[in-house]
Amino acid sequence: MRTYLDCLPCFLNQALRAARIATTDEKKIKKVLDEVGMMLKDIPLNSTPPESGRLIYRKVSEVTGDPDPYEEIKKESTQKALSLYPYLKRLVAKSSDKLLKAIRIAIAGNVIDYGAYENFDLSLEVNEVLKKNFAVFDYSKFKHGLDKAREILYIGDNAGECVFDRILIEEISKPVTYVVREAPIINDATYEDAVQAGIDSIATIISSGTDAPGTILETCSAEFKKMYQNSNFIISKGQGNYEALSYEIGPIFFLLKVKCQVIANDIDVDEGDIILKANGN
Amino acid sequence: MRTYLDCLPCFLNQALRAARIATTDEKKIKKVLDEVGMMLKDIPLNSTPPESGRLIYRKVSEVTGDPDPYEEIKKESTQKALSLYPYLKRLVAKSSDKLLKAIRIAIAGNVIDYGAYENFDLSLEVNEVLKKNFAVFDYSKFKHGLDKAREILYIGDNAGECVFDRILIEEISKPVTYVVREAPIINDATYEDAVQAGIDSIATIISSGTDAPGTILETCSAEFKKMYQNSNFIISKGQGNYEALSYEIGPIFFLLKVKCQVIANDIDVDEGDIILKANGN
Repeated sequence: MRTYLDCLPCFLNQALRAARIATTDEKKIKKVLDEVGMMLKDIPLNSTPPESGRLIYRKVSEVTGDPDPYEEIKKESTQKALSLYPYLKRLVAKSSDKLLKAIRIAIAGNVIDYGAYENFDLSLEVNEVLKKNFAVFDYSKFKHGLDKAREILYIGDNAGECVFDRILIEEISKPVTYVVREAPIINDATYEDAVQAGIDSIATIISSGTDAPGTILETCSAEFKKMYQNSNFIISKGQGNYEALSYEIGPIFFLLKVKCQVIANDIDVDEGDIILKANGN
Repeated sequence: MRTYLDCLPCFLNQALRAARIATTDEKKIKKVLDEVGMMLKDIPLNSTPPESGRLIYRKVSEVTGDPDPYEEIKKESTQKALSLYPYLKRLVAKSSDKLLKAIRIAIAGNVIDYGAYENFDLSLEVNEVLKKNFAVFDYSKFKHGLDKAREILYIGDNAGECVFDRILIEEISKPVTYVVREAPIINDATYEDAVQAGIDSIATIISSGTDAPGTILETCSAEFKKMYQNSNFIISKGQGNYEALSYEIGPIFFLLKVKCQVIANDIDVDEGDIILKANGN
């Protein structure tokens, strides 16, 4: 997805939120905003938002001196999500379509997004998503692709959300490779976050090699790119990965909750909608 | 009021909204955001927001080539407000406390604020404000001050809102001088807007001399400053005037609807609240 004009004030808001988590020093926070303000002129509208997000959150770390403002928040998210795990498993067990319920749950976990939200009530949001109708619902394509696939490449998004992804992976009777970010960025899942969610016991965890808040292929490792190109079934979670991969060719299914108007417009749905979208649709 | 950190992303959002009204050329709008982004570093947090607002909206005009993006919107606001005038007059006529009802109506008109809002439903908003409890209610001070005053200095805010101010002025049996901006800025009322609202038939209209979206005294004419200093009863409408005058000494009563979290925090009330506040309280 391209960068839209509305992304620019949003970048500044995101920098403000992250800087406030990193420090209480108002001068430093002002400095973050000053610096990010000056970066806007170098953001081309034909780049994808995670390319800029990467530079902006790096600037927050550089100015505040905190390399990982969301470290604590990520751990708390995983703990909260793990406490919901037994309940979510029961929902799947009771369901007449276990795969679909697990997909819904994986999408529900996508509310744990500190790039898009300042705060949220996890249980409330999850239960709302579980009741929601899909705005894009390429489920038969998904099932057909899954049946044919030998292996699944599952590109994760946020810490905590990994626990919800685990539920879906547990319903997929195929080998799964779970992809995380190479380094901390916002509250995106790294290797450690995926392990804390228990993903290591059910899938192979690999890093995409990127430190951007989205899987921008040019910033990924050669190893990951090869794996991506050879995959015939890819699950991409969340907004950042959608933004990075929506123009890419590949058998991708985007699973996400739409958390801003810009993405809603890009997909032609409403803010708050949930999406199971085959690439190229 | 000082500038808070949250004002900085808000400035960028305001610039985006104004630029979109001025032009559909995405390159020009991007240029506006680039330029405003670069201006952020020069905004001191100890300045008042209208000081920066003035420079930012000027930049929008400079880059887009439109000296008055809100010209049409202002005329439409006045027309809509005039269509409500007979209804509002009836509300006052039926009221047991006509002055208070007219104050409420004047505050209700403060919803016509394109600096704070992208869009709103005027009739709906007005009726909501009319039902709302005051979060700050210095009404007895207001009545006492009004009784003693020989003349009233009434600092207006937005075009369209002038019609609502007219209702209050018509309930005040004292000479009123109605103050407008010197030049167009956002949808703030200028001389022409006040005349279109019919203020000229019930008050003397003067310009404060400023082209800022708030009555920053340093940017006002010597004539206005003298009048301000000699006044013993001043009504100040809206957020911009509150932001500019909240640190100033003077017998001012602030009448406004609180339309952002920053001002809510500054006054220690909630967003959406309505305020009748004596200065220094």
